[in-house]
Amino acid sequence: MTTYFKRLRAVVLEKGPLCVAVDPHPSLLKAWGLPVSASGAEKCARHLVNVLSEQVAAFKPQSAFFEMYGSAGIAALERVLADINQTDAISILDVKRGDIGSTMEAYAAAYLAKDAPLAADAITISPYLGFGSLLPAIEAAYQNDRGVYVLARTSNPEGADVQLALNQDGSVVQNIIDAATEMNRDSANRAIGLVVGGTHRSLGCDLSDFNGSILVPGIGFQGGKMEDLPAIFGDAVEHVLAVVGRGLLSVGPDAQALRTKVSKLIG
Amino acid sequence: MTTYFKRLRAVVLEKGPLCVAVDPHPSLLKAWGLPVSASGAEKCARHLVNVLSEQVAAFKPQSAFFEMYGSAGIAALERVLADINQTDAISILDVKRGDIGSTMEAYAAAYLAKDAPLAADAITISPYLGFGSLLPAIEAAYQNDRGVYVLARTSNPEGADVQLALNQDGSVVQNIIDAATEMNRDSANRAIGLVVGGTHRSLGCDLSDFNGSILVPGIGFQGGKMEDLPAIFGDAVEHVLAVVGRGLLSVGPDAQALRTKVSKLIG
Repeated sequence: MTTYFKRLRAVVLEKGPLCVAVDPHPSLLKAWGLPVSASGAEKCARHLVNVLSEQVAAFKPQSAFFEMYGSAGIAALERVLADINQTDAISILDVKRGDIGSTMEAYAAAYLAKDAPLAADAITISPYLGFGSLLPAIEAAYQNDRGVYVLARTSNPEGADVQLALNQDGSVVQNIIDAATEMNRDSANRAIGLVVGGTHRSLGCDLSDFNGSILVPGIGFQGGKMEDLPAIFGDAVEHVLAVVGRGLLSVGPDAQALRTKVSKLIG
Repeated sequence: MTTYFKRLRAVVLEKGPLCVAVDPHPSLLKAWGLPVSASGAEKCARHLVNVLSEQVAAFKPQSAFFEMYGSAGIAALERVLADINQTDAISILDVKRGDIGSTMEAYAAAYLAKDAPLAADAITISPYLGFGSLLPAIEAAYQNDRGVYVLARTSNPEGADVQLALNQDGSVVQNIIDAATEMNRDSANRAIGLVVGGTHRSLGCDLSDFNGSILVPGIGFQGGKMEDLPAIFGDAVEHVLAVVGRGLLSVGPDAQALRTKVSKLIG
C-alpha cells in the first residue's frame, strides 16, 4: 500500500475533489421512507456508496448517526466501511476522537489498525487536549499508510471561542496548522490533514504553507459554496477536499437524481 | 427520577467521592491473564463493577477500550453499562464527544436518551468546537435527568496549548468554566460538570464560583494524590469526584485486594 496522501491525490486527480458526507440522520431517514434504526441507517448509507462510488473521491460516514443505535449501529457502520473499502473511493470516518496516552492509542487501534473491524482510510481527530496528545493516532497513520484530519477551524460560529484564542506565538488554530505543516514536512508522508470549514468569509488563519489534505465541510446546507473555495483558501485550494452532505442528500434516494447532482457539484 | 446532581450528591455522601476508571486496556488484560478481545475487556470491566459497586460512588468506563473491538466491543460496553445501572453507583461514560448541530444531537441520543442501548448517567464531552456547540447534549441532560462533564483543564501537559490560550475575557478554560457556572445557576439543575485534571500544581483557572460536579482524573498513576486535592481545588473540593484508574487496577483482579485498596483511597 502507498501513503494516504498519494492514494487520495490519485483518486482526486481522476474524479475531482468531492467527498460525500454519509449522514443518515433521523430526519433524512424519515424523508427517504426508511425506519429510524440501525437497519435504516445502513440501507441509506450503503445505497449512497453503491450509487456514487464511481463518481466521487471519498465518503465521510458520520459515526454519531450509527452510535445512536448502540452495537447494532456499529455493526452497520462496519458493513458501510467494508463497502467503501471495496471501491477505489477513500473512507474518512468522522469520529472527532481526542484523548491522551493509552486511550488515544486505543482510538488509533480502533480506526487506523489494518485489521480493525472499523478500519477507515482516515479519521477526524479533535485537539482540545493539545496537538501533542494526538501523536499516537499520527504514529498509527504513519505505520499503516492511513490519514488523520485534525480539527482546526470548524464551520460553526461557536468554534471561534476556542480556535481563535491566542497563545504567545499565534492563535490556537494557527499553532495547530503550523505543527501539522512541520510534521508533514519532516515525515515526507503528509498523513496529517486538517478540517477547515468552508463557511467563513475570512478564515482567521494562514494555510499557505500547509502541505497536506484539507477537508472542508459546510458546502451547501451550511452556506458554503464550491465556487467560493478559491477565494477562501487561495493557493491552498489545491489541497481542498470539499464535503457535501445535506445539499446532496436532500435530492432524495433516486440514483439518477443523486448522480446528476454530484455531476453538477463536481462541475 | 431526580436530577443527576442530586443523585450523585446522595451517593457521594454515603460512599465518598471516588470514581473507578473502568479502563480495560490491552496491557491490563494481559496482566490479568485475560484475552485482548471484546470478551476479555467485558470480563475485566464487569468484574470491577461486581466487586466494587457497593463501595464506590461511580464508575467511568472508557469507550475507547471497547471501540477497538468494533461492534463486539460496543455490545460488551452495553452489558457493562447495564450492570452499573443496576447498582446505586453512577455511570459516567468517558466518550469525549464533540460536534455540531444534528450530529451533536445524535451523540446526545446515543448516550443520554432514556432508552438508548448505551445510556449512561453522564458522559464526558469535548468543547473544541466551542461551548455553544455542546448545547444539544446539555439539553438532553436536562430533559432526561442526566449529566455532562465538559473537558475544561485536562490532566496532560499538552492541554495547556489550547486550554490556557486567551480570549478578550479570559482563557479558554475560564470561559468554559464561566459558561457552565452561569448555565448551572440559571437551570437550577446543575447538570453540567467539568473535567479538571488533578495533576497540576496550579490550575491556571478559577473554580471558586463553580457549582456543579468536578471530575478529577490523574489521581495515582499520573502523579496526582487524593491528599493534595484540597490544596489544588480550595473550596471547590466539595464538588470533586476523584477518578482512580491504574493506581487501583494495578493491584490485580483479586476481589479482596481491590476492595482493600479502595478502602485506603477513600480513607
